[in-house]
Amino acid sequence: MRIMVLGADGYIGWPLVKHLLLRGHRVCAVDNHSKRWLATVLNVKPLVNHPVLPTRVKGLNDETLSCHVLDLAANQRRFDQIVQSFQPDAVVHLAEQPSGPYSMIGQEQADYTLRNNLYGTFNLIWSVLNHKPDCHIVKLGTAGEYGTPPVPIPEGWLTLTNEKTGESQQRLFPRQAGSFYHTMKILETDLLHFYSRFYGLTVTDIMQGPVYGLSGDPDSNEIETHLWYDHVFGTVLNRFLVQAVAGYPLTVYGAGGQTRGYINLADSIEALRLVCENPPATGSFRVINQFVETFTVNQLAIMVQAAASLIRLDVQIQNIPNPRREAERHFYEVKANVLKQLGLRGRHLTVDRLIQMLEIVQRYKGQIDQDQIMPTVYWQGKEPK
Amino acid sequence: MRIMVLGADGYIGWPLVKHLLLRGHRVCAVDNHSKRWLATVLNVKPLVNHPVLPTRVKGLNDETLSCHVLDLAANQRRFDQIVQSFQPDAVVHLAEQPSGPYSMIGQEQADYTLRNNLYGTFNLIWSVLNHKPDCHIVKLGTAGEYGTPPVPIPEGWLTLTNEKTGESQQRLFPRQAGSFYHTMKILETDLLHFYSRFYGLTVTDIMQGPVYGLSGDPDSNEIETHLWYDHVFGTVLNRFLVQAVAGYPLTVYGAGGQTRGYINLADSIEALRLVCENPPATGSFRVINQFVETFTVNQLAIMVQAAASLIRLDVQIQNIPNPRREAERHFYEVKANVLKQLGLRGRHLTVDRLIQMLEIVQRYKGQIDQDQIMPTVYWQGKEPK
Repeated sequence: MRIMVLGADGYIGWPLVKHLLLRGHRVCAVDNHSKRWLATVLNVKPLVNHPVLPTRVKGLNDETLSCHVLDLAANQRRFDQIVQSFQPDAVVHLAEQPSGPYSMIGQEQADYTLRNNLYGTFNLIWSVLNHKPDCHIVKLGTAGEYGTPPVPIPEGWLTLTNEKTGESQQRLFPRQAGSFYHTMKILETDLLHFYSRFYGLTVTDIMQGPVYGLSGDPDSNEIETHLWYDHVFGTVLNRFLVQAVAGYPLTVYGAGGQTRGYINLADSIEALRLVCENPPATGSFRVINQFVETFTVNQLAIMVQAAASLIRLDVQIQNIPNPRREAERHFYEVKANVLKQLGLRGRHLTVDRLIQMLEIVQRYKGQIDQDQIMPTVYWQGKEPK
Repeated sequence: MRIMVLGADGYIGWPLVKHLLLRGHRVCAVDNHSKRWLATVLNVKPLVNHPVLPTRVKGLNDETLSCHVLDLAANQRRFDQIVQSFQPDAVVHLAEQPSGPYSMIGQEQADYTLRNNLYGTFNLIWSVLNHKPDCHIVKLGTAGEYGTPPVPIPEGWLTLTNEKTGESQQRLFPRQAGSFYHTMKILETDLLHFYSRFYGLTVTDIMQGPVYGLSGDPDSNEIETHLWYDHVFGTVLNRFLVQAVAGYPLTVYGAGGQTRGYINLADSIEALRLVCENPPATGSFRVINQFVETFTVNQLAIMVQAAASLIRLDVQIQNIPNPRREAERHFYEVKANVLKQLGLRGRHLTVDRLIQMLEIVQRYKGQIDQDQIMPTVYWQGKEPK
């Protein structure tokens, strides 16, 4: 297949590009390196510095891979040309500012998130409609769109039924998110759903839980992608791994009862490939809940602590005031059937896997910057001024 | 009270400004005249040409009224200054591209609708948060956000209850709209709801049905506001009034069973005043379904025909292919209690009222441009190319 990856320089993007190539797909990789710029402004960096996209692409020396440095949200004309010339069967859209905390810093960052994420998606939609209307858009959303309702979260949909008339209609399950970033994802879902219903766009909208892992290849002994461990871009388990190695207590936000559905990076990219290879009916809108297993933050901390102790790392757990505004103990049950049907087995988080990751991170211990670890962004109204 | 009216040059905006002044409020009127520009491009115009906002404001010679010509979506810095200096108790936000058909013309118009409507709302939110955080934002949404579900439409909310745990949570009733414009209104609802939950913004989000009428003063014998009767900006009953006077058949889209909740312009502005005068609790998000009575399009056409016959106007009804994509016969039941509680009596559409409006329009018969009447915008995928 001909697959475009938008956000190919990112944590998921780069391993996905490599995985798709291995499976024989032609890939067009696009990124504007905006996350590198955001990180520079915030003075944070990943544990390992990887070269910029064109250099990494050149390093692979694969003629089935092309790349473009391009701002999708700002330069639609050039993106139009790329879609027209590459004629993708699928576009995996990861080209977003990916951080809840970033979006909650203030007006400037919310504005950037709105412009980059919503406009990027809007421009993508129209480029596809104009130049490859049957192209399948695979959009990375977030399970955070659902928030934490008191009822089981379905795989996207709510059925409204009139008991008297017998009529029923499927609508998107009402979403309600916990940050501006997550709210933008809801807006993008609404936008894509509209264009699917009225313009026949083919879409898979993926409600993904937090991702962890160092590489798209589960057997790799390297840190293959940007491993963020700071408060803004680092996901929780990755942060814990680095904290454990640094001899820093694992920072659990609040009571630590926050439950989410987690997925290994290797599973995330495998899932994205399976989604591309198995598109929904042309013109339809499919929702997938993408995660493998659920944990509370406390459970993750305890697992990391246990694994660390087996390799003689003494790790403390520290509950710190929650910088976010979120329920710290809540009901959480999520349906997830589509990926299983598509054939994703799903790797579970085991002590062995944790040890493997801890040992890889240990090789980079000297590069850990402890100043990045503690939260600096507080949800508005949460911190006393 | 100190009330800002954004979109003060518009169909609802101008009568609202006058009504608020009559009731003793100080008013700051803002508009960028963008609808005049859109109409110029589309080559349509209202039945009566009214002067631009500053001229109309000058004509009132009222020192409790000020005005600014300003693009809220593009020039937030100046808008910030206005909010800071005027210190509004309430802002009525009508400053939007108001047309479903306009938003469905193509990419350029969808882009404009996204930029103008969503960015205008985003900028308004931040100006209020920064300079008058307890100001009540009264946002004109549309009942079209709900679409036509098979179940009764509640006044904004859906309760999710877990039968086993007994826990429940209120969420916005899942919205699903029939045009890009209406979808943007959903996005704005999501945005305002987020800022209310996380930043303590005080909001009333109004789900208003189609408005009809010539004036905010129900006893007026004039056309006090822009009466649009074209396919893009004209609402259905206003279009029928002009068609009846012009000797043109009433153009019913499709089967004509589309049911909506209608409201007289005089009621719409009275409702907006009542909403301003009775804000919700500070920091809360209130939804109001704003209409007085429901009709099908066929019922409206028959009522106009009957009223016209009483003043010897022979009016035909013509079903034309529906340019929109929408259900033409459907279940429709809407809850609406808040406005009654606030004291809105609500004027019903009577034959007398129709005759009064037809007679006023008759004085302008010579100015009717029949070229504006038939649809020119077809929902994508609806018309053969």
